[in-house]
Order: sequence, then structure tokens, then C-alpha cells
Amino acid sequence: MQQKIAHRTKKHNQKDTTPAPSIILCRPQMGENIGAAARAMLNFELTDLRIVAPRDGWPNERADATASGAFDVMPEPRIFDTLKEAISDIHFTIATSARRRDMVKPVYNPVNAMNELLTRAGNNQKTGIVFGAERTGLTNEEISLCQALMNVPTNPDFASLNLSQSVMLGAYEWHKIAKSNDYSQSEPPALNPNDSFPAPQGEISSFIERLENDLEKRRFFRTPEMKPTVMVNIRNIFTRTDITDQELRTLHGILSALRGNKTGK
Amino acid sequence: MQQKIAHRTKKHNQKDTTPAPSIILCRPQMGENIGAAARAMLNFELTDLRIVAPRDGWPNERADATASGAFDVMPEPRIFDTLKEAISDIHFTIATSARRRDMVKPVYNPVNAMNELLTRAGNNQKTGIVFGAERTGLTNEEISLCQALMNVPTNPDFASLNLSQSVMLGAYEWHKIAKSNDYSQSEPPALNPNDSFPAPQGEISSFIERLENDLEKRRFFRTPEMKPTVMVNIRNIFTRTDITDQELRTLHGILSALRGNKTGK
Repeated sequence: MQQKIAHRTKKHNQKDTTPAPSIILCRPQMGENIGAAARAMLNFELTDLRIVAPRDGWPNERADATASGAFDVMPEPRIFDTLKEAISDIHFTIATSARRRDMVKPVYNPVNAMNELLTRAGNNQKTGIVFGAERTGLTNEEISLCQALMNVPTNPDFASLNLSQSVMLGAYEWHKIAKSNDYSQSEPPALNPNDSFPAPQGEISSFIERLENDLEKRRFFRTPEMKPTVMVNIRNIFTRTDITDQELRTLHGILSALRGNKTGK
Repeated sequence: MQQKIAHRTKKHNQKDTTPAPSIILCRPQMGENIGAAARAMLNFELTDLRIVAPRDGWPNERADATASGAFDVMPEPRIFDTLKEAISDIHFTIATSARRRDMVKPVYNPVNAMNELLTRAGNNQKTGIVFGAERTGLTNEEISLCQALMNVPTNPDFASLNLSQSVMLGAYEWHKIAKSNDYSQSEPPALNPNDSFPAPQGEISSFIERLENDLEKRRFFRTPEMKPTVMVNIRNIFTRTDITDQELRTLHGILSALRGNKTGK
């Protein structure tokens, strides 16, 4: 109950500044695309750019050239080694994907995706949209770190969007809905009041790592080759929905109980 | 009235082949932008590209590089000396403009603009969207040749869209309305249909019972009174989303590994 009151107060204070989603670019190859993405972001009032392992390092002259001055206005983009680190403080991320993936995650179109992000932002959740490398898109492992997929219904015979165009499309739809919400909706829809707040992704990652270590010790992974695939499966189970702080504590408790602390380990 | 009836009949007949608007680029400077515009057009099933007085002539190697093969699929772009010639066979054109213009023309936002184009296309009118040069946009004379203006509500402090992004945005909104079936999605979004089937609840219950037994043996439940509440929490974690058969096998495997079968129990 106390939590709920605090929650509402925050909501009220942030009424006019619905937090915008972060844009996370995974292993982008061409600086031109990073700069064009930044320009498109700023066109639609998104400013938190995070870059995971840019191929040509950072800063990047080609990015500056296509950004059209956006980097002078936005906060400095943050660079990370891995997607896991890049999203550790974010509660809900949507992975963009042109192909159908063999994973059980909700698949949103751009409008529904941005509605979902706005609903969550209205509940004080940090949100993000994750984009893959130009040629290859996101890996299955990267996607398994995200809670949902976004798919743009493009021409089936010519489906692949340019990276910066894809960022632009997300930013545009977000902006369109965020602006209209300011006028048509007094308060963002609340999540189920029985749910407590979701745990940040970093804490869920820590749990999964702890589980992985325990499984390693127990020789759960029969061969080193199968381990990555199995870990993707496991990660999908625990990242698919909002795991709350309370539930995460429960999961840690379960793990402690099952690992057999009694043996003295 | 008569017009409206004709309109409906044609719409019905042409359901799957609503004529798409032409894209007209006026005096584009950079080949990169022409190519990226063509790619974005084809992504959203627009194929009639007309170019007025391209600065660097035509064909253009830089355009080929960013088109990502679009020119191999689309009809050859047509080159004109003036906008007037480029739109001579078109019935209704919308000019894109970032700035407010001192002209009495209807100003549409992208959604309204594309609705207007689709209505007219349903009446067998040829339609077009006209884009200006990167730096200067359209001249007043060029705008005076068009029937309406389209304005994208961007960040007032960073309004200027890249040319190809602007084309993409028009193409996307057109596609979204023209192919609305592809975008309509029931809430909540369906899971990816290629994914494996969710496990029946009975099997999920069995897993939870097995977990409960193991936790009981490990004295996870400190008091009998707290057990029902904790079990509700645990059940919520595993029943909230579709756990697949495959994932359930993984969870059973995890449990077997963690319970420490090696001790001989």
C-alpha cells in the first residue's frame, strides 16, 4: 500500500515529462547509421542513445557527419561492451526484428509497441528499444534479454529496413502517441494494482548468472557446445514477463534452498 | 452521392491493389538520399519514383550503394527537368514542408495526408508526394504547383528531417493505412505463431508440485503458516505466461540438477 502511494506521487510529478524510451544500438557497423539514428531520435524528442560495441569505435566522424548537429544537443551517447550491461537499469525492452524468431515472446507492431512502452513509462518504468547490427540483426541471445519483439509489416519481398530508418520509425510512432496522450488521456493506464514493481533487468541478469553458475557446478550442461542454446532458453523463461522484486527474492530463495547449502558449500 | 457510391464499389474491387502514390524528389543533392529513399519506398510497396533535376545527374553510384538493391526491383526512376513536367499526369499532389508557408493551402499531418491520398486513389486519381532539396526544401513556386501541404510535427528545436527519412515516413503511413489488415492486431498481441506450443496447465502444475516437494525437503518454508502464500507467489511466476513444453523440460532438468541427485537421493 505504501508503495502504491509513493508510486502515484511520482506519477503526478512526472505528468508532463513522460519518460521517453532509450534507444540501444547493438554492434552497429556504419557510423553513418549511428548519426542518422541520433538525428531521427532528436527529431522526435528521444535523447538517450546507448551503443553496444560499435564496430568502428567511438567517437566516429561519419556519425558526426550524418547527425546534423544532434550530438551537440543530446546528452553524450553511452558505450557498452554488451547488451546486458546496456539495459541493466531498464525494466522493459523491446527487440526489433525483421525475421520471425523461434521464441515465445509477444510480437508487437510499432503502434502497439509504443503504446506498451508509454503505459509502462507512465508507471515509472524505464523502457528501451533494441536494434541489431545492419547485416545480421540481433542474435538470439540478445533477443532473449528482451521482453518482447517489435515487427514492422514491410513489403514481404523487400523487408529489410535501414537501421536509422528503423530507429526513426520507432521514434516517430512514440512521439505521435506520446503527444496525443498529452491531450486525450489525463493519466496513463495503471498496471494491475496487485502487481508490485518489476525488477530492473540487471537484477534479473544477476539471478540468471547465479543460476548458471550453480548449473555449471552441477554439470547440467552436458557439452560446452550446447550451453549457449540452453542458456538462451533459460533466459527466455525469466525475461519474458515482469518478474517483481518480491518474486526475484523468492527465486533467489529457491535457488539457495535447492543448491543444498546444508552440505556446507 | 453518386460519387460516393462509385467510390465504394471501386474501393471494394481494388481492395488489394490500391494505387500507391508517386514519390517526387525535387532537385535532390545527395545520391545517398535518393538511394535510401528508394529503399524506404520499396520497403512499403511504393515503386513510382520521379526525380526532378538531380544535382549529380543520373544514374548515380552513391544512390545505387544505399538503395540496397531496390533499383533492381522497382521500375526505372523517371528524370524530369521541372516539377511541372514531373507531375503532369498526376491528379493530386501533397508538398512536404518543415516550415509554415505563407500560402493558403490545406496543411495535413502525415496520417490525414495519407488518408486523403487513399481516398483519392480509391476514386482512380493518381496521387503524389513532393519532397524538396535537402538544404532548402521546396521553393514557393514548386509548392504552388501542389494541392496541399504535409507537415510532420517534429521537435520544435530540431525540426529538420533527413530527406530519405521524410520519404520513409510518408511511405510508412501510406502503407499502414493501405494495408491496415497487416497492422491490426488484437490486444494483447499474439505470440509468434512459429513458436512451439504452450505446455498444458496440468504439466505446469506437476512441475510446481515437484518443486514444492523439493523445497519442503530442504526446509524452504520456515513455518507451515507462510507456506500457502509463498506457494501462490511461486505459482504466479510460472503460470503468468505460456511456458512451452521445451521450457518445461528445461525447468525439470534444472530442478534435477539442483536437487543434488549425485548425493544418491
